[in-house]
Amino acid sequence: MTRVERFLNACRRRPVDCTPVWMMRQAGRYLPEYRQLRAAHGFLEMCRTPELAAEVTLQPVRRFELDAAIVFADILLPLPAMGLDLTFEKGDGPVIHNPVRTRADVAALRPIEPAAAVPFLLDTLRTVRRELDGKVALIGFGGAPFTLASYAIEGGGSRHYEHTKAMMYGDPLSWHRLLDKLAELCVAYLNAQIAAGAQAVQLFDSWVGCLSTHDYATFVQPHVRKVFAALDASVPHIHFANGAAHMLPQVRDAGGDVISVDWHVGLDDAWNVVGPDRALQGNLDPVTLLAPQPYLAECIADVLRRAGGRDGHVFNLGHGLLPSTPPDNVGFAVEQVHALSRRAPAHGPGHR
Amino acid sequence: MTRVERFLNACRRRPVDCTPVWMMRQAGRYLPEYRQLRAAHGFLEMCRTPELAAEVTLQPVRRFELDAAIVFADILLPLPAMGLDLTFEKGDGPVIHNPVRTRADVAALRPIEPAAAVPFLLDTLRTVRRELDGKVALIGFGGAPFTLASYAIEGGGSRHYEHTKAMMYGDPLSWHRLLDKLAELCVAYLNAQIAAGAQAVQLFDSWVGCLSTHDYATFVQPHVRKVFAALDASVPHIHFANGAAHMLPQVRDAGGDVISVDWHVGLDDAWNVVGPDRALQGNLDPVTLLAPQPYLAECIADVLRRAGGRDGHVFNLGHGLLPSTPPDNVGFAVEQVHALSRRAPAHGPGHR
Repeated sequence: MTRVERFLNACRRRPVDCTPVWMMRQAGRYLPEYRQLRAAHGFLEMCRTPELAAEVTLQPVRRFELDAAIVFADILLPLPAMGLDLTFEKGDGPVIHNPVRTRADVAALRPIEPAAAVPFLLDTLRTVRRELDGKVALIGFGGAPFTLASYAIEGGGSRHYEHTKAMMYGDPLSWHRLLDKLAELCVAYLNAQIAAGAQAVQLFDSWVGCLSTHDYATFVQPHVRKVFAALDASVPHIHFANGAAHMLPQVRDAGGDVISVDWHVGLDDAWNVVGPDRALQGNLDPVTLLAPQPYLAECIADVLRRAGGRDGHVFNLGHGLLPSTPPDNVGFAVEQVHALSRRAPAHGPGHR
Repeated sequence: MTRVERFLNACRRRPVDCTPVWMMRQAGRYLPEYRQLRAAHGFLEMCRTPELAAEVTLQPVRRFELDAAIVFADILLPLPAMGLDLTFEKGDGPVIHNPVRTRADVAALRPIEPAAAVPFLLDTLRTVRRELDGKVALIGFGGAPFTLASYAIEGGGSRHYEHTKAMMYGDPLSWHRLLDKLAELCVAYLNAQIAAGAQAVQLFDSWVGCLSTHDYATFVQPHVRKVFAALDASVPHIHFANGAAHMLPQVRDAGGDVISVDWHVGLDDAWNVVGPDRALQGNLDPVTLLAPQPYLAECIADVLRRAGGRDGHVFNLGHGLLPSTPPDNVGFAVEQVHALSRRAPAHGPGHR
């Protein structure tokens, strides 16, 4: 079984030889070869230069026996084509200099045409897909409507999402128009990535955990549902709603073949809530990768034990790799996942 | 029924004339009279000067028909007496200059004697209790062992709690010794506040939501249980584990007469999980206080509807008041809670 088959089979809840594994932010700052490139290039420059983005995407796959690569990109890449003025400030993360606050701001946002808006991303995907040569699966990704809206409205990261919720509660008409536009963007953006070679796509709803179950169902879920319904169904869809352990049924109902679960709940409990007709991805606490290897091995075994050897488990972290992670521990973790989850080979004809 | 009776009855799941209400961070930056005092005094100076701390505690009670006042203080106030060097830096929040990282650091921490460590806090409580004159209930509070440990180990606030989890996972013996010491501190600190006049105490586990259910049960719950078991039971104990919607049963089992619930889950669902033998506190999303009043009124009605008119509901926010909250909305919310929850008066003898 190739690594591509292992990963795609798990997404489709089909049998695998062992549990496939990849890690959110596996291409990034914990790798010295990444930091070396990053020292010479700006973050957006790296995303927008296919040779650099492809190189960074491939770095972790060269080091570790990962079953999938995730394209090096950022969920905010499509926003400038809508009319938003995005920069990344040193140490401060993304800044949108003309945040969306009024009905007129929402109306002014333009639909995007991915081939014109993010040609570099599609080039990167094509390059990486060719380089991976069928050996490792390639994942594309995008931000979900709520998370994109929170950046667009706040003008960057946020702690309490005051402006976002102010629009949601105070001007629901503008809110739903904005999320409609962002849902359309998600569909175009992810389908273009699939057409360019992504063999699975992950929708990141990174900040939706700030909402109550009730607000999620009212203000967000209908838009996420539209996204999943309109995605090219020839590849599996992964849905990661971070911090959403309190509303897994609502997240499941919004869609996704694979529900990616953060580390707050055990996969056994999560599967009981989500039900048997979805695959699960997750959910090692990324901080355990900083622990001594014997403890890390115990934590990995615990995740696998809770997954219970079911078909339909993609091993991952519950959130992104931390920059302070020792690369050796990543390699150790990948080996442990494969070794501890190895299924007994099926007996061929003539064997007992 | 006095406001004190209303509040204490709700904490004890006894009948009330209407639902009592107070708000976390009700004494704070959203009030101009607070900002005026704060402009002239440092934060720790205000906490350590009983006249100032008492004044700030009373400010919201003068403006609004709140049923309880919470003493103006900080959960980190007892740490210097343990040997930790605490300052509050402008804009950056608390900094502990000698963070606890090793077994020797843990061993060096001293037990505290509240009368010597925080005499100003006990003076403030006595002053406020006298000033409130039996009209409004007085709440004391402290930080829970995990949350105090996270500050002591990280040296301040944190995003991923890397050092905290590193000790928890990598040196569990030191971890449990540290939490033992902090649990003893909690007991001494809260019992001294009760002796000084606090009519209820709230334990804040502000950052424990970063843990999985499993890690909470293993590394934290035994210590919290010891705290609640050793608190003076003549007053009700409120347990607020922030961000812990995924592990409410474990939080309940750690103790508390009243479980304070953040805004992520509805109180109807929370009560189903927690069970009928505890009171609940909460759980309006503090950002709704920035919304237009008609929407705010709907949100308050929804919280009350989910509480279902049961005995044992203390209305509160799901987290602290935001500094940008309009004071008028706080007054409006307090009135709404009382008006919308007013019980029909019991018919006296001779009436039909």
